[in-house]
Amino acid sequence: MADNKEKIVNQVDKDVDDMDDEEVDRNIAQEVLKRPDILAYLQDQYAARDYIRSLPAPVKKRVKALKKLQSESIKIEAKFYEDVHKLECQYHSKYFPLYDKRDAIVNGTYEPADDECDWPSDEEEDYELSKELKEKVKLEAGGNGKTKEQKLEDEKVAGIPGFWLTVFHNVSMLSEMVQVYDEPILKHLLDVRVIILEKDPMGFVLEFHFSKNPYFTNTLLTKEYVMKCEPDENEPFSFEGPEIYKCVGCKIDWNKDQNVTVKTVKKRQKHKSKAQIRVVNKIEPNDSFFNFFNPPAVPEDPNAEIDEETQALLSSDFEIGHYIRERIIPRAVLYFTGEAMDDDDELEEEMEEEEDDDDDDECDSFSFFLKHYHTTF
Amino acid sequence: MADNKEKIVNQVDKDVDDMDDEEVDRNIAQEVLKRPDILAYLQDQYAARDYIRSLPAPVKKRVKALKKLQSESIKIEAKFYEDVHKLECQYHSKYFPLYDKRDAIVNGTYEPADDECDWPSDEEEDYELSKELKEKVKLEAGGNGKTKEQKLEDEKVAGIPGFWLTVFHNVSMLSEMVQVYDEPILKHLLDVRVIILEKDPMGFVLEFHFSKNPYFTNTLLTKEYVMKCEPDENEPFSFEGPEIYKCVGCKIDWNKDQNVTVKTVKKRQKHKSKAQIRVVNKIEPNDSFFNFFNPPAVPEDPNAEIDEETQALLSSDFEIGHYIRERIIPRAVLYFTGEAMDDDDELEEEMEEEEDDDDDDECDSFSFFLKHYHTTF
Repeated sequence: MADNKEKIVNQVDKDVDDMDDEEVDRNIAQEVLKRPDILAYLQDQYAARDYIRSLPAPVKKRVKALKKLQSESIKIEAKFYEDVHKLECQYHSKYFPLYDKRDAIVNGTYEPADDECDWPSDEEEDYELSKELKEKVKLEAGGNGKTKEQKLEDEKVAGIPGFWLTVFHNVSMLSEMVQVYDEPILKHLLDVRVIILEKDPMGFVLEFHFSKNPYFTNTLLTKEYVMKCEPDENEPFSFEGPEIYKCVGCKIDWNKDQNVTVKTVKKRQKHKSKAQIRVVNKIEPNDSFFNFFNPPAVPEDPNAEIDEETQALLSSDFEIGHYIRERIIPRAVLYFTGEAMDDDDELEEEMEEEEDDDDDDECDSFSFFLKHYHTTF
Repeated sequence: MADNKEKIVNQVDKDVDDMDDEEVDRNIAQEVLKRPDILAYLQDQYAARDYIRSLPAPVKKRVKALKKLQSESIKIEAKFYEDVHKLECQYHSKYFPLYDKRDAIVNGTYEPADDECDWPSDEEEDYELSKELKEKVKLEAGGNGKTKEQKLEDEKVAGIPGFWLTVFHNVSMLSEMVQVYDEPILKHLLDVRVIILEKDPMGFVLEFHFSKNPYFTNTLLTKEYVMKCEPDENEPFSFEGPEIYKCVGCKIDWNKDQNVTVKTVKKRQKHKSKAQIRVVNKIEPNDSFFNFFNPPAVPEDPNAEIDEETQALLSSDFEIGHYIRERIIPRAVLYFTGEAMDDDDELEEEMEEEEDDDDDDECDSFSFFLKHYHTTF
């Protein structure tokens, strides 16, 4: 975060220094001068740095010694994060039996016994909206009052149909990606899993398991995320733990005319020399969840330039990959039921603020989660 | 987060249902109906829940089985977090030699050798503000052009004077607490350390080491934070890892008339029976950083009610304690130099957004820190 600030300050300097036009230069400075908040911020920054510059030489030398110690400390931190990652790998396999059972229940290959289902029902702790609100939000009738035939039909339903598609619908980060034409394909999604890569490279692979379907021949689509856990040599103090820096998709073997990630557009084309116009079919990219498996490539050369649009795409892709790994896979049923609707919601914050104004007698609402390890977006 | 939403929905229901006055009821509903964002949010929430209610009975049963599996999964998670905490305890001692050396350099009991100070200078990578901005932010002249006498004076300076006070100034969360009259006291602050408590209870103790001073007789002030790492029986799915739920301060043995946490106010008091008015001295609480060592008590009974003001105080206290442990102690020198000015700054976010609009050619700015373990506020 701190180095972002520095970037901004540098940017201001650059804006001001690099320009040929004195007038433009003056205008930018004028704009900044109008912003008391930015000024105060710069003042704090420069005051702190200037204070350091004004220190007697022997004290400055001691500050440098502290910085050298700090770089040692950050090396220990990096080692700690590596060990946490190892611990995560060890724990990973402990979840396998639970994930296997979830998979089996969702896809109807295992029917849980009564004692495996004794969990308090939502309806027992149910609540009701005011009549007017209820009408407005158009709640439909529940599953009661069914005929014997309907009940027999219900018995035939295997597993939990559309489980993962419903999960995707309830996570705004994913539902934004899912197009209408993706939905029939996603009904074939059987399971989402993660494999953690301990090292060389450190990372994780998201696995999307599909049933045999008319859209593509793959039964497994994968997305690999590669992480690094080393302080940057040039900016050691910006180190904050493991970092995703690269991802790799997979090739989807689409059946003929089933590829939803492209569309055919008819274009009128003028012949180079003759005065003819012909209509050609051009293949263009199409919005689809399945573009998730074809992310922009990250150049091997760490100093290569990447344009802004690609950076934004990668940044959002990394966030989605991390969210699937850390939140969705471990808590899928809570996204299915809506109990864990995603946190990435400005409205929610606003509503929380409104709530803060209310009286709230719950005694544990001040407790402070460290959010160790799990990041909430 | 998700259960906060539920609280809000419940609150809306409560607001609507509990009121005697039909008119008020109708008005609140009307207000909500005017907010398309809240409506859409409620609609999503109810749609998800209603979808669950509308599921055939056998499917509902399977969802319950998944929830039971989920509660097993959360028990494994809690165990994982405990092990991460253990790992943290093991790593903790690895930092001791570095912290000891920092302490010795800061307080002038150790003079680092030249090879311990070879760290690139800020001035070598220095940058300049435009002249106009520079004038505005009133940068003062650096430490150059000193006379021989001044240089001799500089040689006499021991350690890094005012190190911790400067750190406190550069962290807004702390500088807000520090009053003018706290500053001379904080000049006696020699070191800030943390002791990690592995278990029974899990937690940490912040230690503030002071030199002999005219204000109080203690040389060590402590603040203990107690954590828990168990899913709540009533709300197992809200578990997010270790959580601070309690803190304990310490008694400061103030010398006579030196206690800055209280002030004496003269109050006119009417005698109960006689018609006399007398002036009495009343002792009232006074703003001070040292109130940090006298936080509100948390009742032993977990079901006891705590008023809203106390909740807010505790919540902010926990955040400060966590920040001192996780950011300030491990990176003190970066707060001293201003390189790690704190992140808890709305302006910063705004500036980052502005920065996003600029061209930015750095190739690694899309990389995504997992912020594993260290929480950035």
